[in-house]
Amino acid sequence: MSQASLPFEDVRIELGERSYTVRVGAQLLDDPQTWQGLPRAKSAVIVTNTTVGPLYAQRLVDQLQAHYAAVHVVTLPDGEAHKDWQTLQLIFDALLREECDRKTVLFALGGGVIGDMTGFAAACYMRGVPFVQVPTTLLAQVDSSVGGKTAVNHPLGKNMIGSFYQPERVVCDLSLLASLPQREVAAGLAEVIKYGPIFDTSFLSWLDAHMEDLVARDLAALRHAVVRSCQIKAEVVGQDERESGLRAILNFGHTFGHAIEAGMGYGVWLHGEAVGCGMVMAAELSRALGILEASDVNRMRALIQRAGLPVVGPAWPAQDYLRHMRVDKKAENGAIRFVVLEGLGKAVMRAADDETVSQVLARTCAPL
Amino acid sequence: MSQASLPFEDVRIELGERSYTVRVGAQLLDDPQTWQGLPRAKSAVIVTNTTVGPLYAQRLVDQLQAHYAAVHVVTLPDGEAHKDWQTLQLIFDALLREECDRKTVLFALGGGVIGDMTGFAAACYMRGVPFVQVPTTLLAQVDSSVGGKTAVNHPLGKNMIGSFYQPERVVCDLSLLASLPQREVAAGLAEVIKYGPIFDTSFLSWLDAHMEDLVARDLAALRHAVVRSCQIKAEVVGQDERESGLRAILNFGHTFGHAIEAGMGYGVWLHGEAVGCGMVMAAELSRALGILEASDVNRMRALIQRAGLPVVGPAWPAQDYLRHMRVDKKAENGAIRFVVLEGLGKAVMRAADDETVSQVLARTCAPL
Repeated sequence: MSQASLPFEDVRIELGERSYTVRVGAQLLDDPQTWQGLPRAKSAVIVTNTTVGPLYAQRLVDQLQAHYAAVHVVTLPDGEAHKDWQTLQLIFDALLREECDRKTVLFALGGGVIGDMTGFAAACYMRGVPFVQVPTTLLAQVDSSVGGKTAVNHPLGKNMIGSFYQPERVVCDLSLLASLPQREVAAGLAEVIKYGPIFDTSFLSWLDAHMEDLVARDLAALRHAVVRSCQIKAEVVGQDERESGLRAILNFGHTFGHAIEAGMGYGVWLHGEAVGCGMVMAAELSRALGILEASDVNRMRALIQRAGLPVVGPAWPAQDYLRHMRVDKKAENGAIRFVVLEGLGKAVMRAADDETVSQVLARTCAPL
Repeated sequence: MSQASLPFEDVRIELGERSYTVRVGAQLLDDPQTWQGLPRAKSAVIVTNTTVGPLYAQRLVDQLQAHYAAVHVVTLPDGEAHKDWQTLQLIFDALLREECDRKTVLFALGGGVIGDMTGFAAACYMRGVPFVQVPTTLLAQVDSSVGGKTAVNHPLGKNMIGSFYQPERVVCDLSLLASLPQREVAAGLAEVIKYGPIFDTSFLSWLDAHMEDLVARDLAALRHAVVRSCQIKAEVVGQDERESGLRAILNFGHTFGHAIEAGMGYGVWLHGEAVGCGMVMAAELSRALGILEASDVNRMRALIQRAGLPVVGPAWPAQDYLRHMRVDKKAENGAIRFVVLEGLGKAVMRAADDETVSQVLARTCAPL
């Protein structure tokens, strides 16, 4: 099949009257069909950043002008450093300056930061206006399309100010990933890989068989990876929308990963890179706890490495890792709790003492 | 009956799993029973202002210490001028500084500004923590106890940034109204009076019979006024939670009132004073449209005057009023729409041309 004519797939996220569709396919941005059936309004506002805007904003404007009398573009500075209230105000300022009303539709055109901020702006502007996600990174397509989490950072903590707010629709145009640096493709694949070991061994087997296709950005492979990731996340989140229990398994690899990110300084390793390496550590910890086979750990390590992700942690003393993890988890004087694998396909929460974790780190980090 | 032993009344606001109770009574603040059964947490944060805090915050702290290991107080500057994001940040800063988690309960101790800001902070902190309203003005007790509206102002518009977010409980302690300036009691009574003509003639008759008791802050009279106002508002809002139709009748008197507030400069007339006078104008407009008897207009005017509210508008040319109303309503080149009375007890939306409105203003404003 020609990739240009790859048919899209729709994933329905069932949330009662807040249900919506994630459309996954190629060439969606320029397809008028993509933008049919959205809420009517006098105006639409595209929120994007200085990296993505110049590439794609005008093409989205061209499409939306068929549906909205006025289409405005707000271009924010790029990067996590700008995921704050000051930058969010730029969206509110534009909405009020352009006399947007409570029907105005917001479009988030960018990666996770743009999606989180635009969603939060939509949740708050006039107490809630509709919004559409158009994620332009693989990470955003698989991670933030589902779950309804929106937020900005506070100087004292990431994602501390936000809300749960669902989009009208998510449009995952796989063709937009062509402009992504390879490192960011790999970082997105870390979150894709995650869904196999925590929930679905047949998806894990599919990943084993298609990792090179994904790395090469084969559109059909990407479509399956994004569709299946969204389906699994929707199933997990659907059982736990307000994040009290099961949803925690989505943080597989993240406790170790956050320690790497914090220790290196945020942004030195990409989030997905740290999660990739963190999944190796979490798999090794599962083995140390006696609930995962060594051969399964090696299978995980090989898959993560094939994605182009690091599988060896920075050469720090175990105490440094433990200190960062203890902050992250606000552990109460005792063992830190981790998401670990009780065999491939099933994630559980387990506490691990510092001695065990230190041994795992000795096996998974570069020599001191 | 001794007023000190006045039994409380509970109004149940039915909103599915977001249902809650408004408790209305005397001496509630110091009654341990008032604070039973709230969500458990390690910490509670009381948000108040520099006027109310010194009067009541310590008494609330004393009660809450029986339930929460840590009880913090955040004192904001008083006044609508501070209902902005900068002041809201003071709440977030305190929540993060005190390491509050997603179970921490916020208590709004103050008038409408404190309630709106605390509710919005609760809606956004870690994507939503529980909060309790303890309104200390009559206006806040009857107006913001029901409806779930939270917000802050933006330099380009009032209440532009906010959310719909329901409290766990509302505690209307009528004894707290003893410290209120008489002008603010009258301003609160404007919103109480409103519920009669728009929805309930028997409540209007009760108001006719008890206005002097209310002005004198008789606790039993206040209890009935607050209970009935909350019940009526809950009934109206329950039929229209997201504010698309019926809820608009709650703005009876507000279109004229906003023109007075804007023309005088916000804060010169209290909101309730402007609404009181605006209700006289809206009643006169109803008569001019032929849907209300002159005797009913006079009955309304007398009642509003007995509350201690102004019933004669500022001496401006009609054009000034119309200009302010047109901004407020974003009227599209034509007649402005008003909430008017189709007989006492029933409010409807009607357009009125400038000529008719000008004649009404000539009858209800001081001579030029």
